[in-house]
Amino acid sequence: MTKQEVVQCILAGRSNGAAAEASRFAPANIALCKYWGKRDEMLNLPRTSSLSVSLESLGTHTRITPAGSDEILLNGDPVDSSTSFAGRIVEFLDLFRVNGQPAFHVETRNSVPTAAGLASSASGFAALVLALDGAFGWNLPPREASILARLGSGSACRSVFCGFAEWHAGTASNGLDSFAERLDADWPALRLGILTVSSEQKALGSRAAMRQTVETSPLYASWPETVAGDLPRLRAAIAQRDLEEMGSVAEANALAMHATMMGARPAILYWQPDSVTMMERVWAARADSTPVYFTMDAGPNLKLLFEEGSAASVLERFPEAKVVAPFAD
Amino acid sequence: MTKQEVVQCILAGRSNGAAAEASRFAPANIALCKYWGKRDEMLNLPRTSSLSVSLESLGTHTRITPAGSDEILLNGDPVDSSTSFAGRIVEFLDLFRVNGQPAFHVETRNSVPTAAGLASSASGFAALVLALDGAFGWNLPPREASILARLGSGSACRSVFCGFAEWHAGTASNGLDSFAERLDADWPALRLGILTVSSEQKALGSRAAMRQTVETSPLYASWPETVAGDLPRLRAAIAQRDLEEMGSVAEANALAMHATMMGARPAILYWQPDSVTMMERVWAARADSTPVYFTMDAGPNLKLLFEEGSAASVLERFPEAKVVAPFAD
Repeated sequence: MTKQEVVQCILAGRSNGAAAEASRFAPANIALCKYWGKRDEMLNLPRTSSLSVSLESLGTHTRITPAGSDEILLNGDPVDSSTSFAGRIVEFLDLFRVNGQPAFHVETRNSVPTAAGLASSASGFAALVLALDGAFGWNLPPREASILARLGSGSACRSVFCGFAEWHAGTASNGLDSFAERLDADWPALRLGILTVSSEQKALGSRAAMRQTVETSPLYASWPETVAGDLPRLRAAIAQRDLEEMGSVAEANALAMHATMMGARPAILYWQPDSVTMMERVWAARADSTPVYFTMDAGPNLKLLFEEGSAASVLERFPEAKVVAPFAD
Repeated sequence: MTKQEVVQCILAGRSNGAAAEASRFAPANIALCKYWGKRDEMLNLPRTSSLSVSLESLGTHTRITPAGSDEILLNGDPVDSSTSFAGRIVEFLDLFRVNGQPAFHVETRNSVPTAAGLASSASGFAALVLALDGAFGWNLPPREASILARLGSGSACRSVFCGFAEWHAGTASNGLDSFAERLDADWPALRLGILTVSSEQKALGSRAAMRQTVETSPLYASWPETVAGDLPRLRAAIAQRDLEEMGSVAEANALAMHATMMGARPAILYWQPDSVTMMERVWAARADSTPVYFTMDAGPNLKLLFEEGSAASVLERFPEAKVVAPFAD
């Protein structure tokens, strides 16, 4: 099944009126159990399920306005149509129109650095799908919005939700069973602390890195088993608000993902020297009775995991951390 | 079979006269295909074969002199008998005497930092076995010396040789088929460059790290397959003196070993921030047409692999490297 056919399935019977202006926000999400490796490159179908928490306030605001031709602005600046960034958006919009119509003026603003391992493509495609939903008046249920977002970028399917979301890998070749769902859980005291080692664009994008890992890393064979062990532990830890269990599983899961990349040939290393420095600082904090853990996406940055009750101690050790409260309200 | 019984097998029918003073040297060795994981903790039997090159001039000089009681000097300083360093040596000497006799004055001098990932226990136990061989006049063939050295420290079985050595994992439970052999190959232009990030004692020794990896890292399951692929490629690359092939396989093998450790729970990370800095410098050098590769043992230090023809270019980029020519003579 092509992306176009998936879209037709999802939109069958929904409003197909003229598009209007619409503006939506979607949060970035940080995976606690990572998505790493596709079983279908075209439809962004993963080999394994994954689980994330959304950053609530950090993410992407996208406004789309029907226009004579596509025009894309990122953080206020026009994006050249020859860039891969613009190309991916235009290609995605093509799924929802005939003969290039309607075209859109797309204004997208990220409150997280673009492509620095903070999943801006996830919040970006989620916000774009939600904006399209608003513009066309489809009234998509969350599951369908999640599937459409996945067609833009795999982990975007988790960014249509606030809070904890689990992306079910699914088994169907058309991917209609591969979507995220919000977990029925919250954790008001949970805090994330973003430690930015570098906000530069990554030399190797996640898509290519996943492929290289799956195709060349003997270590990848153990990844499905790792996920199968980690997911139920994370669900239980979240239900019990058990930071030690959640944090240690998330940290180990992230390191295992990076390890599968290091086993690729040639090796893939997203870490920078300061990534190691920060890991060492986290371990030193724990050794000194400050309950803080980290996770890392496919990039050099760390995201701390801790609770409000130890925020003072964590911030004393990591004054540079940008703190997010995913369940603040 | 116990260590004692293995020793009895090896020494059966050999000279059993009074011990005399003897002094021997054994080189440190750098594995190009790593030894990581034991199938027998007592006899130091490995799960996989491995392949190394000895450093020739860097290693351990050991002199043993019959004495009234054991006394151990490391780099000129007496070592307290309560240390694990002294304990391992005394326990090893016990394999070769009855009722604590003969006792020895053991003077050992390392020209590599102790326990900093430069395999000083390998050269140390190899030198000790060679010195015992000299002291007792056993006249051990290399294979037997290799087996005895292995009883002290696994990778010591490779340090009884100069040049390239392959340690055959073997399958026998008594380990009599688990020994190293010198490869019939040399490579006069080969150079190693030692980059010392830290010469501090490791927080976690290799023995404990191997066990933790084997017992808790799902990624370890892929290690035997990795070795099975890398060993024949390394043998062929050495026979052809193909630096690009040898270097890229050795580098990937080392990263895969470190990756299996990162998958352990809790994770094991021997890298320091400067380890990553140095890896990046190696990759930058290669990107700039300087053929240089690295390997790393269970520690933070890198060992460069290059050829004499590009030594000037490598040393311009790595002026701090201590260069070793394994086949200088």
